[in-house]
Amino acid sequence: MLSQLTILGPGLLGGSIGLAARQRKVAQRVVVWARRPEAVEEAIRMGVADAGTLDARVAVRGAAAVVFATPIGVMESLADQIREEVGRECFVTDVGSVKYPVVRALSARFARFIGSHPMAGSEQAGLGAARGDLFERAVCIVTPVESTEPVALQWGHDFWKALGCMVRTMSPTAHDEVVARVSHLPHLVAAAVVNVVAGGDGRALECAGPGFRDFSRIASGPPEMWTEICMENRDELRRALRALTEELDRWRVALDNRDVVELRGLLKKAKQYRDEWRLRSEG
Amino acid sequence: MLSQLTILGPGLLGGSIGLAARQRKVAQRVVVWARRPEAVEEAIRMGVADAGTLDARVAVRGAAAVVFATPIGVMESLADQIREEVGRECFVTDVGSVKYPVVRALSARFARFIGSHPMAGSEQAGLGAARGDLFERAVCIVTPVESTEPVALQWGHDFWKALGCMVRTMSPTAHDEVVARVSHLPHLVAAAVVNVVAGGDGRALECAGPGFRDFSRIASGPPEMWTEICMENRDELRRALRALTEELDRWRVALDNRDVVELRGLLKKAKQYRDEWRLRSEG
Repeated sequence: MLSQLTILGPGLLGGSIGLAARQRKVAQRVVVWARRPEAVEEAIRMGVADAGTLDARVAVRGAAAVVFATPIGVMESLADQIREEVGRECFVTDVGSVKYPVVRALSARFARFIGSHPMAGSEQAGLGAARGDLFERAVCIVTPVESTEPVALQWGHDFWKALGCMVRTMSPTAHDEVVARVSHLPHLVAAAVVNVVAGGDGRALECAGPGFRDFSRIASGPPEMWTEICMENRDELRRALRALTEELDRWRVALDNRDVVELRGLLKKAKQYRDEWRLRSEG
Repeated sequence: MLSQLTILGPGLLGGSIGLAARQRKVAQRVVVWARRPEAVEEAIRMGVADAGTLDARVAVRGAAAVVFATPIGVMESLADQIREEVGRECFVTDVGSVKYPVVRALSARFARFIGSHPMAGSEQAGLGAARGDLFERAVCIVTPVESTEPVALQWGHDFWKALGCMVRTMSPTAHDEVVARVSHLPHLVAAAVVNVVAGGDGRALECAGPGFRDFSRIASGPPEMWTEICMENRDELRRALRALTEELDRWRVALDNRDVVELRGLLKKAKQYRDEWRLRSEG
């Protein structure tokens, strides 16, 4: 058990880490740092943390592990603020949705840093949506680089597994390519379709059913966070978008040519991929 | 209450109509027609119908209302088979996902025909997935044309409302344009994204989370049915696909130009549209 776990930024993910860590006895003591006093109070009231502070340096002092759960854009400067207070033995990780820039910045500053990305968000944001079971059966990708200490990689595995995750290992660049396709592209596409559906005379949205509701759920995610994610993972996302454009061209041509065989083939392939994935991920 | 309701094709929708009609006492007696004896037996065992037959002419004889719940492609020939057995006073409707071709074919054959489309499918198909509460709070679009008898339109409204639906009225062409955007386009896009995600080295799908699961759920729908829907609504779907291509171009340009303001604007618009729709549809 960790003597002290410090969570920087108790939002949806940070709050859920605190709840899970306390419920699953991963840490003896959880400390949070937040920018607003109300957030610290709410974290303690919700059982996310035992204590909290508005001073990040105080929050990490004596910690056995520190988790960056803030927006990606503030991680580097926050790291600079606290690095002198973080012990050499202290494990450090983050939950950023894009890994290459974060890992580069944080692994240069902390001896035992391991990047990680629990794939367990939701369209909801903020501490109020935090849940102790958010990570159960969720995939968490840990992203070592050449300089990562083996003990830090091992700790990352153990930590996320203890919170309920299924842990995968990938390089930061491989991670960014994968999530561009499986997370950032669907987000962008769902939002684009919502804009197309709502962009007409407004009648279409009034007729939306449960299929559209689930398809578009991710489009309700926080725009600030997703703008940042899209920009940080811009190159990979552009590649994924090009791949989608090529795929959609195949569908368009099949429709243009009334090519029933091709269209059925594309639909069958998608169903098969998805059904097999669901079986594997449930099994 | 209808003295006899006949359902042609007890699949997901037909079966759910039978369950709802009996539970809500919309019909004194429900009769189903199916092509396979096992389907008739299962419908009776599940409580979808009081009786069933493999002879469509027998099924509709004496019915006060008939619902076509078969694939769209067989409706016209089935209509020809049964039209002489359907009384002039009998109300006739269908549940096809594309309305213009169906309404044209069936309104020429039945005096009291009203087209309808309950937006209450799921990625599951078949009688086994039928539920008596499938239509609760679902939107059902009824699609009168000039020749529609007012009494048939009124009956369509009352029937779907009695099954739990919120009923909207639209012309068949307006319906087809709306569902191309709100239903057929998302289906096609979800399937295309699944193919892009799975098309790499297979690693991406292994990292998919709950956002992707919900986004891609519709891609698990039955390919035969969706091929037929896409082909029947081909012109509108192509238009919707063009609108999406234009929208995606805006996103691509914003990414190319690192235009944070534009990207955030697109994301915010989508979130606002969707959140407002969810509030309205839940409220």
